[in-house]
Amino acid sequence: MSKHHEKRGHHEDMEELEKSSGISRREMLKMSAAAGTGLAIGMSGMGALVSLTDVYDHSKAAGDHKVPADIVPFYGRNQAGIATAQQQYICFAAFDVTASKRSDLKALLKTWTKYSADMTKGETVGEKHPNVYMPPDDTGEAFGLSPSNLTITFGFGPTLFKKDGVDRFGIAVKQPDELVPIPHMPRDELQKEISGGDICIQACSDDPIVAMHAVRNLMRVATGSVIMRYMQEGFLSSPNGETPRNLFGFKDGTANKDTQAGVGLNKYVWASDSGGPSWMKGGSYMAVRKIRMFTEVWDRTSLKEQEATFGREKKSGAPLGKAHEFDSISLNKLPAHSHTRLAHSTGIKILRRAYSYSSGLDPRTGYFDTGLFFISFQQSIKMQFIPMLKKLQQSDKLNEYTSHISSAVFACPPGIKKGGYIGQQLFHSL
Amino acid sequence: MSKHHEKRGHHEDMEELEKSSGISRREMLKMSAAAGTGLAIGMSGMGALVSLTDVYDHSKAAGDHKVPADIVPFYGRNQAGIATAQQQYICFAAFDVTASKRSDLKALLKTWTKYSADMTKGETVGEKHPNVYMPPDDTGEAFGLSPSNLTITFGFGPTLFKKDGVDRFGIAVKQPDELVPIPHMPRDELQKEISGGDICIQACSDDPIVAMHAVRNLMRVATGSVIMRYMQEGFLSSPNGETPRNLFGFKDGTANKDTQAGVGLNKYVWASDSGGPSWMKGGSYMAVRKIRMFTEVWDRTSLKEQEATFGREKKSGAPLGKAHEFDSISLNKLPAHSHTRLAHSTGIKILRRAYSYSSGLDPRTGYFDTGLFFISFQQSIKMQFIPMLKKLQQSDKLNEYTSHISSAVFACPPGIKKGGYIGQQLFHSL
Repeated sequence: MSKHHEKRGHHEDMEELEKSSGISRREMLKMSAAAGTGLAIGMSGMGALVSLTDVYDHSKAAGDHKVPADIVPFYGRNQAGIATAQQQYICFAAFDVTASKRSDLKALLKTWTKYSADMTKGETVGEKHPNVYMPPDDTGEAFGLSPSNLTITFGFGPTLFKKDGVDRFGIAVKQPDELVPIPHMPRDELQKEISGGDICIQACSDDPIVAMHAVRNLMRVATGSVIMRYMQEGFLSSPNGETPRNLFGFKDGTANKDTQAGVGLNKYVWASDSGGPSWMKGGSYMAVRKIRMFTEVWDRTSLKEQEATFGREKKSGAPLGKAHEFDSISLNKLPAHSHTRLAHSTGIKILRRAYSYSSGLDPRTGYFDTGLFFISFQQSIKMQFIPMLKKLQQSDKLNEYTSHISSAVFACPPGIKKGGYIGQQLFHSL
Repeated sequence: MSKHHEKRGHHEDMEELEKSSGISRREMLKMSAAAGTGLAIGMSGMGALVSLTDVYDHSKAAGDHKVPADIVPFYGRNQAGIATAQQQYICFAAFDVTASKRSDLKALLKTWTKYSADMTKGETVGEKHPNVYMPPDDTGEAFGLSPSNLTITFGFGPTLFKKDGVDRFGIAVKQPDELVPIPHMPRDELQKEISGGDICIQACSDDPIVAMHAVRNLMRVATGSVIMRYMQEGFLSSPNGETPRNLFGFKDGTANKDTQAGVGLNKYVWASDSGGPSWMKGGSYMAVRKIRMFTEVWDRTSLKEQEATFGREKKSGAPLGKAHEFDSISLNKLPAHSHTRLAHSTGIKILRRAYSYSSGLDPRTGYFDTGLFFISFQQSIKMQFIPMLKKLQQSDKLNEYTSHISSAVFACPPGIKKGGYIGQQLFHSL
């Protein structure tokens, strides 16, 4: 044991370097990037850094202009992971809070804030130099991986404000009108155990291990205060920033061009304080639906029928009768029950942030257990998401090939200032 | 309808370009790469190609030396996906053959060979210009994605040679002695429905959609000849070619240095015809075990105990008492029941090609449904894999934190020459 530790003390690994140089992993990454673009580093004691820090950025070739742009700032006016360009992977989890005191809830949110700030910088959580007789704070599977554009986004479900009629944390009065549960829809086949949740965490990253590591470590540090209700992983591939395709082979999210940036974000996505509660200003409301897609049935359908169902061409994504994906839509030229015609006919705009999922075969049917983990952000669940969903559930041709199996809504608070914590505004004047 | 098709005919999309220029998607990729490195393209009619073909390679920045090296050749002496550097994602499927005639089996293998050759080049399968009144041959979700180093590796299970005592295809005499089912191990908790299989397909890629698309389209074209028995997806992140970590946070696969290249491959992995059947010369035998890992229990274990369990340091991967990952192992310095000591004490070497998996929460326990989809390649299941597994199952300390829930073995035939098909040698002189 002692010999082992004596040896261990001599390692010139990253941890030792972090300690001896006082340079954080993020700073090392920056220096690595600088070195990659040819800048000489002359600081004393830094000679060995570059090759070691390369280890921390496995995804980018040296000279790639993205280095070290694979850190998305955690602090800011809005939470990251909403307007952020969609990363390739999601690990989403919903929790039921078992703590019963408001002070415990606040303590949890403070800890989660600190952990999230560290992980989005690519750092490990907790003690960097673990006591070997204790479990390590960080689970370790992301050691050596780059930050991979990790974002961690928090949301509060209606049951956090009031559950079974009980105002556990004295915050029921703060529940926004915009945050109402989605009523039962005629075609719903919801599974209760993967629906709802008091709090959600959406971790998105360009590496699935980095996203999963985030959720796992946030879960661990919260043991005793929450239990995890469900967790869902998903993926997405977007060739060169093009609209990604869903597992039916169609481009999915074309309409985001109106909501994903600038004026569109302010008009449709970010909550304002005119009408809504001031604690949500700069936040957004998240709708979640797990939509099973029956790919075997779809794959036996003619191309003509597939295109009539979406109201778009499969390959180009153009509205039927038009030439290009982003050509304007002439509603009356599209089949009456096509997905695109129905969604556009409402005039409602939302920001979609959906991921595909695939979980092997469904043991009950032998079919692929596959589909879309739909997420959207909007200013109001009540005024935007629910009316659009109602319209689509009534007559969307796509319903023949899909089934909604989970449902949840969350109020995602505004972003966090350094020194603050997630949801802090909710507790003002309480 | 006619108007729609008239419009469609004018699209200058990739499909049209492929058709009009007679240039395949792979060739376009090559030209795109050449353009990326600054080479001018002067051929007539090629002016618009570069920007369009960029779409087909979403993962690499222009000038990245890997373009277009994200095609792994499908044809060759050995099947790709065995000695190939491990890609980030796997989609693995096992099938039961329902066709009853040898000619049907051969026809299936020929079709699968053609489809695989196309997909590994980044091409779609089947008809490139679908009849709109028919289901498209290609399911379409990988349109626009690069080949992403896709490899497709086939294997034949013992039940293909003889099932329930029946020699369905008249090939029982050809079953290699090296291919024997793994006997029941004392700690096994195998689920029959995710074990075994007549044929397996291992699709690996740096994009999970590309891997999944491959399996989905091979399944589709085989409808009526096979049913899918199970499918398993997995992932892996290997920072800069370093040994990847498993979900216990430890480096996993360090011992591959002896088997993954050159002499090691010939000595331990590729089947020779001395002793074994000549039809397997240049092939390899694959062992598959789905190993559930109890991360919640592990995460409550001290670092000292974790390191004693593996016999290695967590961060560096060095054998306990040594300084570096690849330092030689002094068996008697390692804890008697540590994983590393036991595995090395057998003197047996195999090529590991394992992936992590994560499937949300286990609804029965509320714990993470997570672990290792273990795959290894070797010259003999009987002489290499089974003796090593027996030793580890007896006293590996790691057993306290894991459970083997599936098991399968396959004979992976040698590689394919252009014009040939997978497993062709098996049918010689029959």
